[in-house]
Amino acid sequence: MAAAKEEEKEEEKDSEDAAAAETEGRVRAWAAEQAARGRRVALVTSGGTQVPLEARAVRFLENFSSGRRGAASAERLVRAGYAVCFLHRARSAFPWARALPPHGPALLDALRLTPGPPPGVAAAPAALPALLPALREYRRAAEAGALLAIEFTALGEYLALLRAAARALAPLGSSVMFYLAAAVSDFYIPVSEMPEHKIQSSEGPLQITMKMVPKMLSPLVREWAPEAFVISFKLETNPQILLEKSRQALEKYRHQVVVANVLESRRTSVIIVTRDSQTPLSLSDEEIAQGMEIEEKIVSYLQGQHTAFIERKG
Amino acid sequence: MAAAKEEEKEEEKDSEDAAAAETEGRVRAWAAEQAARGRRVALVTSGGTQVPLEARAVRFLENFSSGRRGAASAERLVRAGYAVCFLHRARSAFPWARALPPHGPALLDALRLTPGPPPGVAAAPAALPALLPALREYRRAAEAGALLAIEFTALGEYLALLRAAARALAPLGSSVMFYLAAAVSDFYIPVSEMPEHKIQSSEGPLQITMKMVPKMLSPLVREWAPEAFVISFKLETNPQILLEKSRQALEKYRHQVVVANVLESRRTSVIIVTRDSQTPLSLSDEEIAQGMEIEEKIVSYLQGQHTAFIERKG
Repeated sequence: MAAAKEEEKEEEKDSEDAAAAETEGRVRAWAAEQAARGRRVALVTSGGTQVPLEARAVRFLENFSSGRRGAASAERLVRAGYAVCFLHRARSAFPWARALPPHGPALLDALRLTPGPPPGVAAAPAALPALLPALREYRRAAEAGALLAIEFTALGEYLALLRAAARALAPLGSSVMFYLAAAVSDFYIPVSEMPEHKIQSSEGPLQITMKMVPKMLSPLVREWAPEAFVISFKLETNPQILLEKSRQALEKYRHQVVVANVLESRRTSVIIVTRDSQTPLSLSDEEIAQGMEIEEKIVSYLQGQHTAFIERKG
Repeated sequence: MAAAKEEEKEEEKDSEDAAAAETEGRVRAWAAEQAARGRRVALVTSGGTQVPLEARAVRFLENFSSGRRGAASAERLVRAGYAVCFLHRARSAFPWARALPPHGPALLDALRLTPGPPPGVAAAPAALPALLPALREYRRAAEAGALLAIEFTALGEYLALLRAAARALAPLGSSVMFYLAAAVSDFYIPVSEMPEHKIQSSEGPLQITMKMVPKMLSPLVREWAPEAFVISFKLETNPQILLEKSRQALEKYRHQVVVANVLESRRTSVIIVTRDSQTPLSLSDEEIAQGMEIEEKIVSYLQGQHTAFIERKG
């Protein structure tokens, strides 16, 4: 049984490695094309990772993230002239698709049968004001090859794909921005300590012990893409410890920027922290009323920082 | 701090209670209408519940479920003449909407700009063969009031809404079917033992102790809707214990049917277990090739069982 389990896990590892190798090739070819066109490239990570609690998993630990920040930022980055590699949790928010109603009754109600002949389906008039500009921008980005979407679900898959994409982008040097907005789990259960079958509730209360996930920022900054401009995100629920944690991260991982935010106010204000500065960005009540998103300010500010970084490096 | 936390939790509890009361009224009015039209009613629960690990939660325990079984079954039940109250996890599979491409690039690619004037959006021809019949059936169901959709996300919300809906449906007696396909967590962390803030990864490995969730089948069968026809689902990864667990559940909760299934084969075969029978249902290779779904056989079989149950009661 244990041998069969080991074998199964090895097969899974092999298929994860094969997928990562395939992704590395795909990102490398795409990045070369972007560089030839003189475009800067951003790798945006987005959404939460899934951590299985059982080998044949029914239960998972999830880090909350709708993927809204990553998706909104990817849209802004494309608008600012970047080509974006969008490494995202499957089914989390997707650039421009977020203008569509959620998948369910709202989406069904936004689509109308047209009598024809031949019969067809058209968007309801009420959906058009949001849908038209989003679809136009998506088409433009797709036709220009400015958006390369890569999906993950499990934590292991995310880590393997991030490494693959980082290596593929390294040749672009300082013109690459890593915009690491995904909510990555800090904890996991090693395969060797994982129960094979569904944990039985009849056995009483559940005790789980999880190990810490190694931080990927260290190898990313030191080995995989040492010339790149790297931005990480820090989300806390307690504002008291936010800035201190952000400074500690910059000190420890030696990357360029931490975007610091508090869970409750994350949609309207952030602090951009670098080794020698901290810049609060926020939306005014008027801007909120106009439907402006904080990602517009974040991307615009970071684009300037990235330009300065490239100039210093060059 | 502790007092503020208690207060916050009480406010949350109050708003959950208010939502449940509102739902109870809505379901009661809808059910009376269905009964007046002579329709049987099914309450279908679907999708997984979310269990927070922190008070201001960033991390969650999730039970895996795409909601596919519940959504497919709801479609079949409506086709079989039932009015369906669909209590489902937000963003999980939804009846007929599952014929649409997933929310993301596939959905964007399935929608085309039509030049106009005025400009519009139409479904791409390739999407129509799946989309047209689904939209037609959805419209028919919506116009007949045969589908009442209610959303949940957190475990507590699910439990409160299930109780509210069950009480509202109780007056319909034996003509109500409870089709409990949701993947409900067995474990949770009581508010009193929950850390307020995001658990810090710097404090080393994570130890979680979870309590057992009280089983809702007991009060459902004994108190909330004692005349109803109640079907629960049992999913195991280990086929060896599946039938024994199903029989134990029937013995313990005194309901009518357990639909037993194994994780890996759940889309092609199940066993319908009652106190004095066990009936395997499965798809043949030919039926799989034709795109038939196992839910067609499950619903058709259970509809017959429900008819016999009503006749025995009457």
